[in-house]
Amino acid sequence: MENESSIDLQGLACPVPLPHTKQVVMGHGSGGRMTHDLIQKVFLPHFSNPSLLAGNDAAALNFQAVTGTSPNEIETRKIPQIAVSTDSHVVWPLFFPGGDIGRLAVCGTVNDVAMLGATPLYLTAAFILEEGLPMETLEQVVHSMGMAAEEAGVHLIAGDTKVVQRGKADGLYINTAGIGIIPAGIMIGGARATPGDVVILSGPVGDHGIAVLSARGELGFEAEIISDISPLNHLVKSMLAVSGEDASPIHTLRDPTRGGLATTLNEIARQSQVNILIYEEKIPVRPAVRAACEMLGFDPLYVANEGKLVAIVSPQAAEATLDVMRRTHYGEEAVIIGEVREATAGRVLMKTAIGGTRIVDILAGEMLPRIC
Amino acid sequence: MENESSIDLQGLACPVPLPHTKQVVMGHGSGGRMTHDLIQKVFLPHFSNPSLLAGNDAAALNFQAVTGTSPNEIETRKIPQIAVSTDSHVVWPLFFPGGDIGRLAVCGTVNDVAMLGATPLYLTAAFILEEGLPMETLEQVVHSMGMAAEEAGVHLIAGDTKVVQRGKADGLYINTAGIGIIPAGIMIGGARATPGDVVILSGPVGDHGIAVLSARGELGFEAEIISDISPLNHLVKSMLAVSGEDASPIHTLRDPTRGGLATTLNEIARQSQVNILIYEEKIPVRPAVRAACEMLGFDPLYVANEGKLVAIVSPQAAEATLDVMRRTHYGEEAVIIGEVREATAGRVLMKTAIGGTRIVDILAGEMLPRIC
Repeated sequence: MENESSIDLQGLACPVPLPHTKQVVMGHGSGGRMTHDLIQKVFLPHFSNPSLLAGNDAAALNFQAVTGTSPNEIETRKIPQIAVSTDSHVVWPLFFPGGDIGRLAVCGTVNDVAMLGATPLYLTAAFILEEGLPMETLEQVVHSMGMAAEEAGVHLIAGDTKVVQRGKADGLYINTAGIGIIPAGIMIGGARATPGDVVILSGPVGDHGIAVLSARGELGFEAEIISDISPLNHLVKSMLAVSGEDASPIHTLRDPTRGGLATTLNEIARQSQVNILIYEEKIPVRPAVRAACEMLGFDPLYVANEGKLVAIVSPQAAEATLDVMRRTHYGEEAVIIGEVREATAGRVLMKTAIGGTRIVDILAGEMLPRIC
Repeated sequence: MENESSIDLQGLACPVPLPHTKQVVMGHGSGGRMTHDLIQKVFLPHFSNPSLLAGNDAAALNFQAVTGTSPNEIETRKIPQIAVSTDSHVVWPLFFPGGDIGRLAVCGTVNDVAMLGATPLYLTAAFILEEGLPMETLEQVVHSMGMAAEEAGVHLIAGDTKVVQRGKADGLYINTAGIGIIPAGIMIGGARATPGDVVILSGPVGDHGIAVLSARGELGFEAEIISDISPLNHLVKSMLAVSGEDASPIHTLRDPTRGGLATTLNEIARQSQVNILIYEEKIPVRPAVRAACEMLGFDPLYVANEGKLVAIVSPQAAEATLDVMRRTHYGEEAVIIGEVREATAGRVLMKTAIGGTRIVDILAGEMLPRIC
């Protein structure tokens, strides 16, 4: 084939071609352009189907066999659907300020399911353990998973344990898959952002990525930054109670994990074929995170979060949604950060603090490996 | 606590106590007693719930919210249920005679779902890739997954890709989770084996484990042994068409993977609180597998299979079930290998070829690491 390629996943056409690699590199796990490229070129040719191509954090399924309903009822979402998602977790180190791989494995998947507006109900958990892992470490991680599952209100219903030899893993890796119910009438997805919609962010960005870096001792200074890992399903549930002009006024929900807020907004802009305009001065970043980013040369817009969400909401419902969010524990710092504009290019634009406008692109390579 | 413990998972009380280990060892991934011990002592205290405690290969779920049915209807299985299972795959090497990690990742989970009598419909797939993995290798594996998914008739609906640094994995690991529908009226589970039931095995045992060993060059001779990796859902579907005196004459289905036939039968005997009597001379083992086992000191009863199932069937339906199985590609070598006897101990007994009777215990430690 050629030795260059461009990305075209769900309209994700990128202006700059990526080099074709003959080997997997760290950037393929970034959640940014290289990950999209890998999905597009290696996975989709073999697995293409509507649920996967929808490009959301979770797949929405119709169990016609269960419900006995007509395809027409399903399409209009008059009946509940089932949401399914999966994530493997390889964060290093296993423990960091504010969380650990166990809490991450539960919250990461709970949140992906919740981002379809679903109520997460069940989790599976599969462990890959490295020979020699202290049993006490495993016990701590499992305890943490149990606590997070209880907080989220989900049940772990199936599991698996594999062991690999010393040096063939990094302590332990955890996969979780999550299953939830999308209530009847709820239509949330990356392709529903509409010009005029308001962009709400549930709180400050960058905490998780910088907390993990600090646990690695890579900051070079002591910082009081703790990860924001949280199950967001209860926050989402309160938001769904807000009514608007249309039956489902929350159009898109997504948690800006790998690749950060910038990558998440780009995905939505491209799936919905709209521009998203955000205001730099409105995006909350904690001072310690900002300081760490400045020192390390990172842009907080690209740093991972594990307890934040972006909501794209119809303008009529925006204030009510914000109010509801601010009354919840994980949404109390919610702010409006921008709006959706008409376009076909699918770009993210940012009004900078000094009044300019710049294009905010998707994360290209790998900035912070193994933060989730 | 103490430094010794006995296992008691779903009645899995073992006569010989296992040493308590302070670290994870390879035996914890065997699928045998050490795996059960780990589940019992580390996982269940934090995750206990009826679906998990049922101890089947997949969990059966009731989506009351979807179906709007009463708990009573659900308990009597008058309505369909949802079956869910997960497995991570760490087989080494990635390719071996008859299959590869991709085919394994699809078939392993498809089969676990099918063992509840469910029709597998959807899979998730999550990849942990080692930096430096040749892209060609990944492409081969994904191609193989696509082929296996097509054969099984399942759709891959959600995925995830993570990359870890060189030396932190062994090429790639794949997790799959599977979702299927258990038709109304079907009641299959490890606790349903009943005295008088007939034990059917779908074909010769040990092919997969020995094929993987041969790919590792551990046999020391050239052997024409290919893995039996296959999706068994179509075989199961034909079996479900057999009617008997009770509405669901197939009482238990299980695929004897890690730990082999001996471990699987022990699990069933203990879950159902029955004895299972098998006849050594009736258990099919291919000559090349038998030769390899004799040379290496392995017992084929403990060697893993990836395309075989054990069915525990009411005596009235046994012959019809066997007939149906033999007319399918993956069941053409099916045989009756034993019967279920009354007991409370939950043991597996074997009439040996020379006329004696011996207890066949669950696999204790680790015989063949990383065969799935």
